[in-house]
Amino acid sequence: MSTGPETPLLDTVRTPADLRALSDDQLPQLAEELRAELVDAVSQTGGHLGAGLGVVELTIAIHHVFNTPHDRLIFDVGHQCYPHKILTGRRDRIRTLRKENGLSGFTKRAESEYDPFGAAHSSTSISAGLGMVEAARHQGIARNVISVIGDGAMSAGMAYEAMNNAGHMDARQIVILNDNDMSIAPPTGAMSAYLARLVSGRTYIGLREAAKQFSKRMPKFIQDKARKTEEYTRTFFSGGTLFEELGFFYVGPIDGHNLNHLLPILRNARDAEVGPILIHAVTQKGKGYAPAEQAADKYHGVAKFDVITGAQAKAKPNAPSYTKVFGQALVQEAEHDDRVVAITAAMPSGTGVDIFEKAFPDRTYDVGIAEQHAVTFAGGLAADGMKPFAAIYSTFLQRAYDQVVHDVAIQKLPVRFPIDRAGFVGADGQTHAGSFDIAYLGCLPGFVIMAAGDEAELKHMVRTATEYDEGPLAFRYPRGEGVGVEMPERGEVLEIGRGRIMREGGKVAILSLGGRLKHALLAAERLDGFGLPATVADARFAKPLDTALIEQLARNHELLITVEEGSIGGFGSFVAQHLFNEGLLDNGLKYRSLFLPDRFMDQASPDRMYEVAGLDADGIVKAVFGALGREEIAQEGGASIA
Amino acid sequence: MSTGPETPLLDTVRTPADLRALSDDQLPQLAEELRAELVDAVSQTGGHLGAGLGVVELTIAIHHVFNTPHDRLIFDVGHQCYPHKILTGRRDRIRTLRKENGLSGFTKRAESEYDPFGAAHSSTSISAGLGMVEAARHQGIARNVISVIGDGAMSAGMAYEAMNNAGHMDARQIVILNDNDMSIAPPTGAMSAYLARLVSGRTYIGLREAAKQFSKRMPKFIQDKARKTEEYTRTFFSGGTLFEELGFFYVGPIDGHNLNHLLPILRNARDAEVGPILIHAVTQKGKGYAPAEQAADKYHGVAKFDVITGAQAKAKPNAPSYTKVFGQALVQEAEHDDRVVAITAAMPSGTGVDIFEKAFPDRTYDVGIAEQHAVTFAGGLAADGMKPFAAIYSTFLQRAYDQVVHDVAIQKLPVRFPIDRAGFVGADGQTHAGSFDIAYLGCLPGFVIMAAGDEAELKHMVRTATEYDEGPLAFRYPRGEGVGVEMPERGEVLEIGRGRIMREGGKVAILSLGGRLKHALLAAERLDGFGLPATVADARFAKPLDTALIEQLARNHELLITVEEGSIGGFGSFVAQHLFNEGLLDNGLKYRSLFLPDRFMDQASPDRMYEVAGLDADGIVKAVFGALGREEIAQEGGASIA
Repeated sequence: MSTGPETPLLDTVRTPADLRALSDDQLPQLAEELRAELVDAVSQTGGHLGAGLGVVELTIAIHHVFNTPHDRLIFDVGHQCYPHKILTGRRDRIRTLRKENGLSGFTKRAESEYDPFGAAHSSTSISAGLGMVEAARHQGIARNVISVIGDGAMSAGMAYEAMNNAGHMDARQIVILNDNDMSIAPPTGAMSAYLARLVSGRTYIGLREAAKQFSKRMPKFIQDKARKTEEYTRTFFSGGTLFEELGFFYVGPIDGHNLNHLLPILRNARDAEVGPILIHAVTQKGKGYAPAEQAADKYHGVAKFDVITGAQAKAKPNAPSYTKVFGQALVQEAEHDDRVVAITAAMPSGTGVDIFEKAFPDRTYDVGIAEQHAVTFAGGLAADGMKPFAAIYSTFLQRAYDQVVHDVAIQKLPVRFPIDRAGFVGADGQTHAGSFDIAYLGCLPGFVIMAAGDEAELKHMVRTATEYDEGPLAFRYPRGEGVGVEMPERGEVLEIGRGRIMREGGKVAILSLGGRLKHALLAAERLDGFGLPATVADARFAKPLDTALIEQLARNHELLITVEEGSIGGFGSFVAQHLFNEGLLDNGLKYRSLFLPDRFMDQASPDRMYEVAGLDADGIVKAVFGALGREEIAQEGGASIA
Repeated sequence: MSTGPETPLLDTVRTPADLRALSDDQLPQLAEELRAELVDAVSQTGGHLGAGLGVVELTIAIHHVFNTPHDRLIFDVGHQCYPHKILTGRRDRIRTLRKENGLSGFTKRAESEYDPFGAAHSSTSISAGLGMVEAARHQGIARNVISVIGDGAMSAGMAYEAMNNAGHMDARQIVILNDNDMSIAPPTGAMSAYLARLVSGRTYIGLREAAKQFSKRMPKFIQDKARKTEEYTRTFFSGGTLFEELGFFYVGPIDGHNLNHLLPILRNARDAEVGPILIHAVTQKGKGYAPAEQAADKYHGVAKFDVITGAQAKAKPNAPSYTKVFGQALVQEAEHDDRVVAITAAMPSGTGVDIFEKAFPDRTYDVGIAEQHAVTFAGGLAADGMKPFAAIYSTFLQRAYDQVVHDVAIQKLPVRFPIDRAGFVGADGQTHAGSFDIAYLGCLPGFVIMAAGDEAELKHMVRTATEYDEGPLAFRYPRGEGVGVEMPERGEVLEIGRGRIMREGGKVAILSLGGRLKHALLAAERLDGFGLPATVADARFAKPLDTALIEQLARNHELLITVEEGSIGGFGSFVAQHLFNEGLLDNGLKYRSLFLPDRFMDQASPDRMYEVAGLDADGIVKAVFGALGREEIAQEGGASIA
């Protein structure tokens, strides 16, 4: 090859077994090559870069020391797994990351035996690992289980629940705390401050010191029984680290980029016959790639970029993103109402809460990766007269479902839920799709649920949410940019439970909820061409239903069809039940609901995913033909459209 | 009064303001009277007794020191709130506890201004309290916020998330850790062991020591700036308690029954201008009532009982409870398959996992109040070949919704979810109703969802769940006893997605899912008398649907009606969508779904709640008449039935 006289080591590593055949001395070179390959690959695909750069040495060291895939390696969240993918037989596909039919941007069981437990949402790895430890024990299998979890993920209660249980069970589990003092946003929370104190108060420990820690902390290594008891007592009662108090053996902090430290400590952990171990490794997000090291977000998620300069090729938007519209509209409303406050669970920029924070830092709360707390905290604020906006993605709000039910809905508290990433989200795939919120919120008594048909609608909904103080309210909107409609100076207050008619037809009525509105209108245009004049209405509300609008559509059309970016059990089902209960089907009205298909869909562009799901203009047209029993036209229509 | 020469103090206390007019010296007598009143009341109503007995002094002390309701007092879970209710204007209704139109068994905002944040599910009080602290700050209101949380509730991640955030914000919040080493079951988890070490390693502190702790720990009290820095550093780096490491000032342990300790320490906390404080109070569940103190469960939840002997008047069941049938059936299957393991989140007896534990202690996991961890832990077990049964009530599974979606459903892992308490649960009311699981699970691709029509069916479903290894599976069943059907020796394997026909009719088809089957059959009998022969089918599966059965019912009847113990968006909606998509309504079939009403219903007996909801035999008959347009008969029928 032209890059040097010798074959790069990375080319010789097809699987971790090849990696284990290398000597310790060769690993720094491998790390260098792996890092270069990672930067090059992500420069072409875009994706998560900073996290992967931070764990290059750690990933190599783990695969070198442990017998993967027999030993189980679980990456928390999974956005740091690209180096792992390159080393585990997926290098040839690494430039398909996050693309249609390509590699997932996260670990994924279906993709490789080296991904024993998939991820994407945070803080699951200790629980899953503990389950695997117990599965091996029951089956008499000798196996190491290693969970790699970031410091940000430690703010989630689930990680604590798992440690609390593992410490109690004294399970033989290895947790590597990858402490880069940075998840997506700068760290927040007392745990983060605690970890910083742990690190700042101690120097990195090396091999000798780690061995001492192991022998000191692990009773089985100690011969003198009396001394053992004394040591054990001392450790617990004088107050060890917080992790020790939860029953873990704590080793660290260690330099997560120094293979001379990592390798012996991991070998010690592998060979020690003890309960749960927490290895505290300090790493640097973006390590080894200057543009990433220097960037504020450490290149957490990047577009395609130039490897030399680091300049990202972000496409110029045609319309403002929904996220930005939300952030700006909330600032505007907060200027009129000082009871408005905003809450994010470690996603200030993803949710647009960063825009609000710039204007109202004292009225902004980043509670960490802690959606459960975020929602009930919002409940407390609402109970005492504030107007909290708990801005959480649809997929992450699942984390706080019980809090939404028990603390907000049952108490009828006016917490506002701006729900970004409703429907398909593209490259992040199935784990991030906002598919279920209409169903899981729509069944809750007293909830008001809106969905924005365009970015101006979102602005109205922010205003409406601010004014509405009777109970819980959610409004959902898609990922990405708006459709380019004219924006009002300020949002208007929408009447609760009233939709709007966008165009009048005669035979077919399309009732759209949310971001499919544009495609509903496109579909109607095409239907005109087939002699099927279509009415299009924007429901605006999934709950309460606009029953007058539905009755009007039902009585004056042959077919009523709903379209939504959500699963079964949502808007289409609510409309269906209403039609039955009111006898609106008795005159021969046909009805169809278009919703997301009953399968988890792999990543592709959102447009492509909606096409496959039959929720684009073509899909709507075909559904109309199908419902009207005009399959021949449907085929013809499909052909002519294609 | 005949009980003594003087008026009891309790009779003079209508509200906490009256209580605050008493001197410190009078409070022990008040405590004695309050305890007697509590025992007498619960002996008549049944309910949660042990928890309330444990906080008699604490409740009095808090209301004495703090200015409730201006100061906010939040009880976590709320089952310890009966003494609080007696002291806050609800004594005259205390014997209506948990009854229809009576007081709720938990704190409830709608019931009293002294309940600023309702509860029932655990571990929400610190989050809600922090929200109230911030609401007061924004509005310039001087207010204390006190959260009382048990040690059991500390195993939930949500409590940790809240402390992590409060410690970071340095918010002026008071948390009282009510440590009785006992929630519902004996304690589990490393945190519980840690608290025990904290208590056993120290003697109770008194006034002088508490004052020292306050002055030592609170920088503002300290004049010498140099010394302050040194102290601050020392506390953090030498490792204080775990709570200190999370940013709380820790005071304790104190004797939670000693008013001479409680009062000055609470006054100190009230007057100190500092960040979050955690007061660690040690109490005894069931304190002061001998039968409760001596019982293994400390009279956590009791039936009516004899005050003198403590003997509970538990009604003799006519049929085994679903809970017991589940536990026994799981034991039976586990005898045939050593991969079966059971998981509970701190509810071994409530779920029947205690029965399994007796037979298979090594295959049983009580993970603490930690549903999120429980589910992903089960995911890890399933990923490596075990057959985990994660037994969680419908209402508590809401706590783990994201884990069900992200860790189980997306990965198609065969975790089994036995869901007890499906539908109305009676005395525990709206917070414990199992209303939403069909909707929130039914929208998830690949989930198999069963519901037991009777207790024999449950036995079949346990067997079916054991054998089915393709993906996630849930089976739900009601609270309480079965209907008295003959029980098979062992369950049979049901065919996935196949229901059964219970009786053949002609005009009307009732398709029942779950425990309403008995009432569907009763309704059919009554319909016979009106010349409306009814077919009754037991759907068994909410997902996948028995499409052949549905088609058969749709084609051969004038009306198809579904009945389920769940909300909108569930089984009835799935059937509706199928009818539309397959054109099964084209021949004039009428269809109705009966499901839970769209409001949160207060407690009553389950039978009464189903009656009000229209889901009993009468309700089904009326719905049939309504759907067939025979309102006159419906009225007549209703009258004759009543």
